[in-house]
Amino acid sequence: MTDTDKAAPRFFEDIAVGDRTRTGSITLTRQSIIEFARLYDPQPMHMDEQAAKAGFFGALVASGWQTLGVTMRLMVEARPFGTTPLIGIEIDEIRFKRPVLPEDTLNAELEIIDKRLSKTRPDRGFLRGRTTTFNQKGAEVSSQLWTMLVPTKQAL
Amino acid sequence: MTDTDKAAPRFFEDIAVGDRTRTGSITLTRQSIIEFARLYDPQPMHMDEQAAKAGFFGALVASGWQTLGVTMRLMVEARPFGTTPLIGIEIDEIRFKRPVLPEDTLNAELEIIDKRLSKTRPDRGFLRGRTTTFNQKGAEVSSQLWTMLVPTKQAL
Repeated sequence: MTDTDKAAPRFFEDIAVGDRTRTGSITLTRQSIIEFARLYDPQPMHMDEQAAKAGFFGALVASGWQTLGVTMRLMVEARPFGTTPLIGIEIDEIRFKRPVLPEDTLNAELEIIDKRLSKTRPDRGFLRGRTTTFNQKGAEVSSQLWTMLVPTKQAL
Repeated sequence: MTDTDKAAPRFFEDIAVGDRTRTGSITLTRQSIIEFARLYDPQPMHMDEQAAKAGFFGALVASGWQTLGVTMRLMVEARPFGTTPLIGIEIDEIRFKRPVLPEDTLNAELEIIDKRLSKTRPDRGFLRGRTTTFNQKGAEVSSQLWTMLVPTKQAL
C-alpha cells in the first residue's frame, strides 16, 4: 500500500487475504502504565513497585488491557484500510504471551486471514485479521483475532 | 460472599462453577471517552462530535477498548477472588452488542463457568468466566470469556 492509499478510504473489495500491515512503535513509560492502571485496572502489580515485586510477576507490569489499547492505537495510526475506520465487532483468541515492562517499546502487525460479504447487507463485509504485538526484542507479547466491519463499494 | 471474604485471598478451591459477582457502576463522561480515544483509539467516531455524526454510528461513541477497560476496573473493584489478583491469560469471544454513549453508566457481571487444575503445576489452576457488561437500561453492551490463573492452597 502506498501513502496515497492511506489518505483515501479503502473498501472490502480493495483488501485481500494475506495483506499485512506493520505499525510504528510506542514506548510505555512507567508513568503511563500507572496512569492507565489507576483508571482501568487498579491492581497493585500495575501500580505499586514494591507490591508488584512481591507478586506473581515479580515486577511492575503493564495491564494487559493497556497492551491491547496501545496495539489499537498503533493500528489506527498505521491505517490498514486508509481512511476507512477500524470498526471491530468481535475479538477472539486474545493470548497474553509475555509481560510488558516499563520502557518496553511495542509494535504490531495485522494480517488479513479471511473475508466474507454480509449475507443480509450488500453494502458491507467482514474481515478477519490476526493482530500480533511485539516488544523491542521482537518477542511476541500478545496476539488476537479481530473481526472488522468494512463497507463495500455499494456503500458509496 | 461476605465482605470479610473480600479482605482475604481466595484460592482455586474456594471458587465454584456457578459463582457470580455483580459489580458497582461507572459513568463514562464525554471527556473520559475523548481522553481514552486520544491515547488508545484515536478515530474520529470516538473524539470528534461532528465527524462522529457523519460516520457509522451517527454519534460520538466510546471505544470498545474503553468499555472493556471500564469492565475490568469494575471487576477489580468487585473483588470476585477477594485479595487474590485478577490475572487474565486468555480472553475469548469478545462481542460488542451495542454502542456506549457519553453519560452511559456501565455495570458488569462475572459468572464462573469452568475450572481446571494446571496439569504441570499443583500450585495453580485456571478459572473460566463469562463477563457481561450492561448499560443503565440493563441492555448488554459487551460480553467476553476470561481465562484466569488463580493459586491453589498448595501455593500457600
